[in-house]
Amino acid sequence: MELTGEMEVMQVLHMNGGMGETSYANNSLLQRKVISMTKPIMEAAITALFSTVAATLPTSLAIADLGCSTGPNALSAVSEIINIVIDLCKAMKHELPEFQVFLNDLPGNDFNTLFSSFLPRFQGKLSEQLKSKYGVSATLPCFVNGVPGSFYGRLFARESLHLMHSSYSLMWLSQVPRGLEGNKGNIYMARSSPPKVLRAYYEQFQRDFSTFLECRGQELLVGGRMVLTLLGRRSDDPSSKECCYIWELLAIALSQMVSEGLVEEHKLDSFNIPQYTPSPKEVQGEVQKQGSFSIDCLEASEVNWSILATDSNSDIVLKDGGHNLARCMRAVAEPLLIDHFGKEIIDEVFKRYEALLADRMSKEKNAFVNVVISLKKMT
Amino acid sequence: MELTGEMEVMQVLHMNGGMGETSYANNSLLQRKVISMTKPIMEAAITALFSTVAATLPTSLAIADLGCSTGPNALSAVSEIINIVIDLCKAMKHELPEFQVFLNDLPGNDFNTLFSSFLPRFQGKLSEQLKSKYGVSATLPCFVNGVPGSFYGRLFARESLHLMHSSYSLMWLSQVPRGLEGNKGNIYMARSSPPKVLRAYYEQFQRDFSTFLECRGQELLVGGRMVLTLLGRRSDDPSSKECCYIWELLAIALSQMVSEGLVEEHKLDSFNIPQYTPSPKEVQGEVQKQGSFSIDCLEASEVNWSILATDSNSDIVLKDGGHNLARCMRAVAEPLLIDHFGKEIIDEVFKRYEALLADRMSKEKNAFVNVVISLKKMT
Repeated sequence: MELTGEMEVMQVLHMNGGMGETSYANNSLLQRKVISMTKPIMEAAITALFSTVAATLPTSLAIADLGCSTGPNALSAVSEIINIVIDLCKAMKHELPEFQVFLNDLPGNDFNTLFSSFLPRFQGKLSEQLKSKYGVSATLPCFVNGVPGSFYGRLFARESLHLMHSSYSLMWLSQVPRGLEGNKGNIYMARSSPPKVLRAYYEQFQRDFSTFLECRGQELLVGGRMVLTLLGRRSDDPSSKECCYIWELLAIALSQMVSEGLVEEHKLDSFNIPQYTPSPKEVQGEVQKQGSFSIDCLEASEVNWSILATDSNSDIVLKDGGHNLARCMRAVAEPLLIDHFGKEIIDEVFKRYEALLADRMSKEKNAFVNVVISLKKMT
Repeated sequence: MELTGEMEVMQVLHMNGGMGETSYANNSLLQRKVISMTKPIMEAAITALFSTVAATLPTSLAIADLGCSTGPNALSAVSEIINIVIDLCKAMKHELPEFQVFLNDLPGNDFNTLFSSFLPRFQGKLSEQLKSKYGVSATLPCFVNGVPGSFYGRLFARESLHLMHSSYSLMWLSQVPRGLEGNKGNIYMARSSPPKVLRAYYEQFQRDFSTFLECRGQELLVGGRMVLTLLGRRSDDPSSKECCYIWELLAIALSQMVSEGLVEEHKLDSFNIPQYTPSPKEVQGEVQKQGSFSIDCLEASEVNWSILATDSNSDIVLKDGGHNLARCMRAVAEPLLIDHFGKEIIDEVFKRYEALLADRMSKEKNAFVNVVISLKKMT
């Protein structure tokens, strides 16, 4: 199947499910790190939200995580948000609100594992925190919902949410842009991509991101906050190495296999990742054009590829960084690759990709660039 | 594992997942039939709701299905509700509201299949209906949430719902009652159960059902409606054949296997179904005691066991009634049986159960009794 329409991406794109070796649940340290890096911005957003609504603090606070995926990360942002709220309520001597939590992802996301394995842990931790902070053994009223659907459409009732969060999801486009026929040998924007291809990618991002803002603008209450982290870039050049190199190396692995006759050339030529890694300026441009939000904060930060070789905050035995980075990318991209190339080539592709990553990491420093934006819903 | 506590039932009880031969999705005609039988009562409840709130008809209507399970039934009640609302709005020349749909079941329910297979069909059908009724090609704003958790606890924010529905779920208890040690040779209430056992079952039902009413009373808006269908009985006798015979035949199948050394006796003696099939009077008693609801309608109806041999409204090839009834019961009870007896005996148990059911059905008429109650949230 060629990934060309919105329906196809909706059906195919999802992080690897389950709890196995190649699952997203066990290969999402990078994304966890990014969520924790965003904490100060989240704290500022929630504090600002509270200062606006303190007089009329709702009895129920509605929070959404958009593109939650599955695994421990799916609830880690929500955990942090609830913790910040608990601390604020304590400091302000406010009664704790009830929490309504909405975990959104595409319908192919592994909600079963999320609900049956990670939700109970989350609820257990919440009770512990409540006990340690308030000294009471109580269950925090926290009602969790799974919301299957594309965030490039409406997901929630009108003006029903206070706070939205999204991390490492909004760079995914609703569809592979049309007009990428000239992108031969590449699977994403690259230095060798014709200008037409770069333009097609950018225009798809503009359409998608403004639709996203339009929908969220309808769903957030006035004064509501939204903190978004996207994989992006600092440079104005959309084909710059900081955002494209990670996919370029995967394209090299696939090209090797084409030259050895293991993958058909037309298969590679017709495969393109439905992603766009914008600059802060591009994100800002869309927010201003759309008009529902004011910008509280906009910044770019970096996470080294090598973070996966050094992070020790995990149960998983870490081997070399190439191995773990390849696993991380596999947990993310495998369903797209299987859909296009079939199951058979997957192990081989990622073996080669791992070697390429390890080689690069031993010779140069590369980083993922995160664009973080904190928004306030205007009247 | 012995099913003794609330946590255990929460973890073990679920309809068979997936879309295979023994799945609930493919073996739930009986439950579908029951949902359609309840339609007139649902219609009356929604019409009454509208007459109360018509002046202030909300822009967003929040509907919940409690114990939705998976498969086509999970969204069939919601479909009917939305259709009734569309017709009412058309007749009253009201603008259509947005719909918030909450599909609740225990965390072990197969939400993945529900979201990825049945939700798209539901959304497609909604669009068709909108087109046929309003002559427009539009997407009805209908936001679907999965709500993993026990309905014997809070699930939703305070006063946030307009309408709740539950079919064939509330007879499931939160736990196997304590004090069933004397229920040897039985797996449910039976004529040979000591009075102590019948009392333990009834008291568990009273605790659970009143907790349920308490929680829903907090979650429904004043004037909100709730329509509940439970597997029950007409008789005052909790061990009467009309509610217990279906499990008694399963106990006979298990007893045969005990006598042949295929199942250990103590295993059978310690297995009890966490269910209670109340009479209309018992349901009414709990509603009146709890005090949050007035009763609009309360009735008992019947569905013949043989319905599964004659129903033609399905894609599935129907063989004899014993076969289909056994499959229906297997889709419901298999996870409980596997948890207690292990996987190995399952095929054999249901082969014997099927023969017993077929024999009974050829000799006598048996029916499931449904207790349906329509409730209004009072001030």
